[in-house]
Amino acid sequence: MPIPTEITPLGVGGAVPTRDRHLSALALRREGRVLLFDCGEGTQFQLLRAGLLGSRLEAVFITHLHGDHLFGLPGLLSTMGLLERSRPLTLIGPKGLEAYLCSVPGASPEGLPYPVHIREWAADTVDATVYETEAFRVRALPLDHRVPCMGYRYEEASRPGRFNVGAARAAGVTPGPDFETLARGGRVRVGSREVSPEGIVGPERRGAVVAYCLDTAPCNGARRLAHRADLLIHDATFGDEDIERAAATHHSTARQAAEIAREAGARRLLLTHFSARYPDPAALAAEARQPFEATDVAEELVTVRVTPQEATA
Amino acid sequence: MPIPTEITPLGVGGAVPTRDRHLSALALRREGRVLLFDCGEGTQFQLLRAGLLGSRLEAVFITHLHGDHLFGLPGLLSTMGLLERSRPLTLIGPKGLEAYLCSVPGASPEGLPYPVHIREWAADTVDATVYETEAFRVRALPLDHRVPCMGYRYEEASRPGRFNVGAARAAGVTPGPDFETLARGGRVRVGSREVSPEGIVGPERRGAVVAYCLDTAPCNGARRLAHRADLLIHDATFGDEDIERAAATHHSTARQAAEIAREAGARRLLLTHFSARYPDPAALAAEARQPFEATDVAEELVTVRVTPQEATA
Repeated sequence: MPIPTEITPLGVGGAVPTRDRHLSALALRREGRVLLFDCGEGTQFQLLRAGLLGSRLEAVFITHLHGDHLFGLPGLLSTMGLLERSRPLTLIGPKGLEAYLCSVPGASPEGLPYPVHIREWAADTVDATVYETEAFRVRALPLDHRVPCMGYRYEEASRPGRFNVGAARAAGVTPGPDFETLARGGRVRVGSREVSPEGIVGPERRGAVVAYCLDTAPCNGARRLAHRADLLIHDATFGDEDIERAAATHHSTARQAAEIAREAGARRLLLTHFSARYPDPAALAAEARQPFEATDVAEELVTVRVTPQEATA
Repeated sequence: MPIPTEITPLGVGGAVPTRDRHLSALALRREGRVLLFDCGEGTQFQLLRAGLLGSRLEAVFITHLHGDHLFGLPGLLSTMGLLERSRPLTLIGPKGLEAYLCSVPGASPEGLPYPVHIREWAADTVDATVYETEAFRVRALPLDHRVPCMGYRYEEASRPGRFNVGAARAAGVTPGPDFETLARGGRVRVGSREVSPEGIVGPERRGAVVAYCLDTAPCNGARRLAHRADLLIHDATFGDEDIERAAATHHSTARQAAEIAREAGARRLLLTHFSARYPDPAALAAEARQPFEATDVAEELVTVRVTPQEATA
C-alpha cells in the first residue's frame, strides 16, 4: 500500500476572514516532510493546532503577493526563529517576495537564526520545476489573477511496478536478493538462463499528483496543473449567482472549478477560498457536483488523504 | 453611575503563540468608540470574534516594532479596506511604523480606501499626549525594552462633581435650567441673591485611567503610567524562577508587575504577555498577589470593566 499524502487546509476563507475561516494556507505532509502552500495571516496558529509547526516544514510556496496569501509569513519565520529552528527553509514565490521580507522588522532572512533560501519566479514563467527532491517535485504554472500568480503541481516520483511473486517463482527465481534486483528493473540469472523483469514486475506506477490553483479565473494554466491530478485544490470564491463578480475579480465560481477538474481529468476536487458572503459552502459544492461529482469542500484542520491512482492501462 | 470602560484582551501570549494564546493586542471600548493597543498577528480574527471589527475602531497604539505586537496591522488595515471602511483611522507608534506599512503590499496607507493618519513618536519622547478627544486623552511614556518602546496611559476627561439636590433646593434654586448652570460650575440668581455651586456641587470627579505597559522591564516609565490608575495592564512574561531571563530580555516577572502596581498606587492589575513556558498563568498570578492582591490574569475575549475611583478626599 502506498503511503498516503496528507492535505490539511489551514485557511479556507477568501480575502476577508470570518469568525470560523482563516486566510489561505494549506499544508501537505508526506512521510514526515511538510510543505506549505500560501501563508495568510494566522497560518502559524493553524500549523500549531495541526501539530505541524516545526522543523519538518521544509518549503513554503506563495502563489501571489496579496495579503491574504502572504501576511502570515513574517510571523511564521519569526516564531520558528524563536523556537530555535536550525534547519534550512526554502521560500518560493513571485518576484518581490524577498524585498517584502527584508522590509519587515524581524522577518528579514539575514536576521533569522536558520538559513532561508528564497527562490523567486518571474512573472512570465511558463512552466518551471521550482522545487525538487528525490521523492517529489513541484512545478509552477501561471494562473489568471489580477497580479502575477502561479499555481503549483506537486508530483511524487514514480514507484516501481507491482511484483508478481507467483510469476517470479514460476520463472525459477529464488526469493531474496534476486527478487530485489528484478523489482528494481534488473535482470537475474537462474542457472544458465537470464530472467528479465518483464511479466514479473508490472509497469512503473505514478506517484500522487496534487494541484493547487488559487487565486484564479478558469484558465489553461489551471487545466494543465490539474491534468490527471489525484486531487485538485481550486479557487471557489463564488457561487453561480456571482459569476460576473468572479470574472471581474479574476476568481472562479465553484462550478467553474468543477469544470476545470472535469476537463483536466482530475480524480477529486477540493473547493476553497470561499467569499465571506457564503456562510455555508455546501451550496457551492452542490453547484460544483453537477459537472464534477467527486467534489468536496475544504474544511480547516480536516485532513484529506491522497493516494495515487493505480495505472489502468 | 459612570459608564464603564471595557477592556478586552485579544492576545495574551508572549512572543511565541500557543494553541490557545494569540499575540499581543487589547481593545478598549467606551461609549461605542474602540481603541486598540498593539496589533500582533491574528488581531483581526480576535476583533471579529469580539464583535469589534468595524468602523468604531478609531485609533491603534503600537508600543514597539517587534513582530508579536505589529504583524497583525497590515491584515487589519487591508480587511477594513475590503469591508469598505470610509472613516479615518489613526495609527500611533514608533518612528519606522509608516515606512514598514508602506513596504507591505496592500497595506500602504495611500492604497487604502479610507484615510489613515500615522503619528510617529520619537525614541526620546519623555511624556507626550499622543491622542486626544473631548472624552479622553492618551499619553505615551517610555518603557525599558530592547528597542524603543512606549507604554500608554488612557485618561478619561473629568466629570462634574455630584449635584446635591437638597442643598440646591435649600438655597432656593428651582429645578430646571438653573440646576444645569450650577452643575456646570456657573452661578445663578435667586431673587436678589447670587448662588454659587459651592456646597451644592461636589468636587470634580476624575475619569477612569488605564495604563498599558508592555513590553518592559520594571521601570519608572511604567510607574508613572500606572500612577493611581484604575487598571494597570502590565508585562508578566515570566515567573519568579525566570527573573534573570526577564532581566536579560527586558521583560518583567508577574511579581515585578505587581510591585509596580503597588508602588504606583494602582487599583487593579491585569497580567498579560505570558511566555509559552507557562501553560497555566494562575501560578504567575499567585506570585503577583503577594505584593498586590488585586491582580488578575488577562484572558482572551473576557472583558474587564473599569470604573473610575470616586474621590475620597
